[in-house]
Amino acid sequence: MSISKQYLQKSGKNFSEWFDWIISEAEIYDYGRYPVKGMGVWLPYGFQIRRRVIEIIRNLLDEKGHEEILLPLLIPDFLFKKESEHVRGFEGEVFWVTRAGLEDVDVKLALRPTSETAISYMESLWIKSYRQLPKKYYQVVSVFRYETKMTKPMTRVREITTFKEAHTVHEDFEDSERQIIEAVEIYKQFFDSLGIPYIISRRPQWDKFAGALYTIAFDTLFPDKKAVQIGTVHNLGQTFTSVFDVKIQKRDESIDYAWQTSYGISERVIASIIAFHSDDKGLVLPPNIAPYQVVIVPIYHQDVKEKVIEYCSKVAKVLREHGLRVFEDYRDDLRPVDKFFKWELKGVPIRIEIGFREVSNGTVTIFRRDVMRKEVVFLNQLVEKVTELLNEILQNVKSRAWKEFLSSVKLFNNFNEAINFINEEGGIAILPWCGDEKCVRNKLEGVEGISALGEILIDSLNKLGISEKISEYSSCAFCNRKAKTFMSIAKKY
Amino acid sequence: MSISKQYLQKSGKNFSEWFDWIISEAEIYDYGRYPVKGMGVWLPYGFQIRRRVIEIIRNLLDEKGHEEILLPLLIPDFLFKKESEHVRGFEGEVFWVTRAGLEDVDVKLALRPTSETAISYMESLWIKSYRQLPKKYYQVVSVFRYETKMTKPMTRVREITTFKEAHTVHEDFEDSERQIIEAVEIYKQFFDSLGIPYIISRRPQWDKFAGALYTIAFDTLFPDKKAVQIGTVHNLGQTFTSVFDVKIQKRDESIDYAWQTSYGISERVIASIIAFHSDDKGLVLPPNIAPYQVVIVPIYHQDVKEKVIEYCSKVAKVLREHGLRVFEDYRDDLRPVDKFFKWELKGVPIRIEIGFREVSNGTVTIFRRDVMRKEVVFLNQLVEKVTELLNEILQNVKSRAWKEFLSSVKLFNNFNEAINFINEEGGIAILPWCGDEKCVRNKLEGVEGISALGEILIDSLNKLGISEKISEYSSCAFCNRKAKTFMSIAKKY
Repeated sequence: MSISKQYLQKSGKNFSEWFDWIISEAEIYDYGRYPVKGMGVWLPYGFQIRRRVIEIIRNLLDEKGHEEILLPLLIPDFLFKKESEHVRGFEGEVFWVTRAGLEDVDVKLALRPTSETAISYMESLWIKSYRQLPKKYYQVVSVFRYETKMTKPMTRVREITTFKEAHTVHEDFEDSERQIIEAVEIYKQFFDSLGIPYIISRRPQWDKFAGALYTIAFDTLFPDKKAVQIGTVHNLGQTFTSVFDVKIQKRDESIDYAWQTSYGISERVIASIIAFHSDDKGLVLPPNIAPYQVVIVPIYHQDVKEKVIEYCSKVAKVLREHGLRVFEDYRDDLRPVDKFFKWELKGVPIRIEIGFREVSNGTVTIFRRDVMRKEVVFLNQLVEKVTELLNEILQNVKSRAWKEFLSSVKLFNNFNEAINFINEEGGIAILPWCGDEKCVRNKLEGVEGISALGEILIDSLNKLGISEKISEYSSCAFCNRKAKTFMSIAKKY
Repeated sequence: MSISKQYLQKSGKNFSEWFDWIISEAEIYDYGRYPVKGMGVWLPYGFQIRRRVIEIIRNLLDEKGHEEILLPLLIPDFLFKKESEHVRGFEGEVFWVTRAGLEDVDVKLALRPTSETAISYMESLWIKSYRQLPKKYYQVVSVFRYETKMTKPMTRVREITTFKEAHTVHEDFEDSERQIIEAVEIYKQFFDSLGIPYIISRRPQWDKFAGALYTIAFDTLFPDKKAVQIGTVHNLGQTFTSVFDVKIQKRDESIDYAWQTSYGISERVIASIIAFHSDDKGLVLPPNIAPYQVVIVPIYHQDVKEKVIEYCSKVAKVLREHGLRVFEDYRDDLRPVDKFFKWELKGVPIRIEIGFREVSNGTVTIFRRDVMRKEVVFLNQLVEKVTELLNEILQNVKSRAWKEFLSSVKLFNNFNEAINFINEEGGIAILPWCGDEKCVRNKLEGVEGISALGEILIDSLNKLGISEKISEYSSCAFCNRKAKTFMSIAKKY
């Protein structure tokens, strides 16, 4: 078998085409062939990446006392429609079951687009007293949204297969605010561990989650320099608890509705990993989520085959004993160069090449995917070297991603300059702002395709090094009044 | 807070009521309160049991080269209806999406009741050559069946939330037969690791999976002595590959349809764990799937509280360092006796009680849930003793379950005696059989509520110690002709 070496370029304009190509060639996600629009298949290699990403967020949530549950997929009509603002936000996007077997159902059933209504109903049965609070639940499930815009693999799909939704309950507003801070911290750690750069904003009220008091969002930038929402945190206040009658006895023995937050991420996280950690040769996976961290490729003439393979197995065994995920590629029907091509494309962080020279010298040749560089190492340094390199690769892919991201986030004093920057180069423009959402809305109404991401949180201002600059940027770029904070705007997915 | 100590009896007749009670009291699965019939909520404690059960089957499948994937939940009408026998088998049970947003959908979408049709369509794109075979896929997903019989938590639900379905592809019939043997072995290991006893039968042709050549099933017995199907293995032959055009180039360069098998398990596995590993005080969880293997309960007067808790933490730390899952129950609002009650009910295998006496003597009091027995152990023997006890508990719950099961499986020569046994005592009756399914069907037609499980596989005959007895049981209990093998019959769930 021979492999055709067709690369696509991952430049800004071709990003969408490149993305379709890489998820197919690297065998991550089969999209566009399953005969339902907006629904794809996770392939074995992609599934393993997905599984490790889920494991990371699961551990972060568990550490902070979140409990995993599993709610039914179907939400009856009357439950789903109980909270009116929520319904208005979602009714255009819901898939409905109306038939079962050979009959019509008595009550239409929604395929959950999100689970606030289902869990609030259950919480009204589960939670009675402040003593049980705070309570933090989460689930990792498929949710369904009937997207009418053009669908795109992993970023705009009709079956979101990797929806991690957390739902928390609190005694009072203050505790729900504490939870918002915890949730933001968890997501920061999560995205940091994957090397996905982000900016954190408080969404304008017109763009918050349907039913929330407010929404905080994490956005990143794809190579086409459009902003992508990769995580959201909502303070739901008492919206759902009052409608679903989630009443608690409080510390002072009074009865009141509880307070809620919810926060979610989706497979856009995995799309972001692919978007950032890759080059024109394919993926460069962070070692913590790579299905294989090391691939071993033997190189031999037939007469030394046995010796080379024996040596390879020994190397694999040693690495596995140290907890590394190793694939030994002994396939006969591919030349070494074809295997190199394939594993580079699939983003395996380290390749070990072993030929007769390595066997004779007691060495291995180590190839590092992120910088495409080889070095020869003696066997007794193997484990130490591989461990060290895996750490370096993780750090390197992270810092490259942040550098790329920050190069497209710019601070402007002047609204028109900011708009020109976005129209010409893409990226996120940051502008001093008075704090009044109306003036942002007014200004942006006249501008096609550019949206407000929201007021930038202090965390992101620090990261961007502009926390202290509000004195230099003293007047609002939208209305010329006194600026108090910063607003970010961008083209959005 | 005080807990009311109401026990239900797990005797045969009350089993169904007991089961509802235990899954609620032990906080496993909230059933009957979510407002869609046949759909329940996995609660945190139950979710952790479920997660560990899934992990066991995942490891067994991965070891044998199965690859995990994730297919879309929705199957379009035209795909689902392509194979006529399959459709006839399922059409009474399918939930259909007919609306999305504010419109009717162009094509009706089935909520998957199983995924043979979806994966066969994809396999026609993925698989081209015998070189890629055998190929073994699996997924762990929710499937939906519009059950019209009375629904029951975990055993007859409309959302089966824990459906592990494997789908394999083979070059020829022989290799598919080899796969059937592998699948049966995997399920044996799986059920054995959970201490769930079973009998393996080849289902009568009238009761096979819709579209299969034949079906092999694992059945167990619940305390009401009815048989419950807990796993099935199907040889699908070329049924789906011919309809979905999954063609491969064979070794001899000819082109032919590939061969398939599929095999599945569901949350009935977890229902079986609960059914077998429990007594009138509640659950007795096998340590390998217990969310907590050890719970530590301090017992103190206020003046020594600090010392006792410090000692407890030390004990917990040591156990955790040895990889054990430990819960330290320091709640102030429950008396020790209430905690005992609660953790016994939830089936934690070992409880460690620590009071001032234990602190003074450098000991701990260890309570073993399966036999409800206490012993005092010195701290320096703690880890060794706990590890040993956990192994003993696992072995004990397994052997108790098998003993209980085998006491209700009986061999008969005479059909009427077998029927009387089942009607009076319940259980599985085994009868010598000529091998002709028609004579079983004829005989059972006159008997209400008793079904044929099928021809018993040699594995199960060995386990029952009757492999050699066919000479003693020489005439078919259904037709008096010469017996060649054994048939099992029972009341079925």
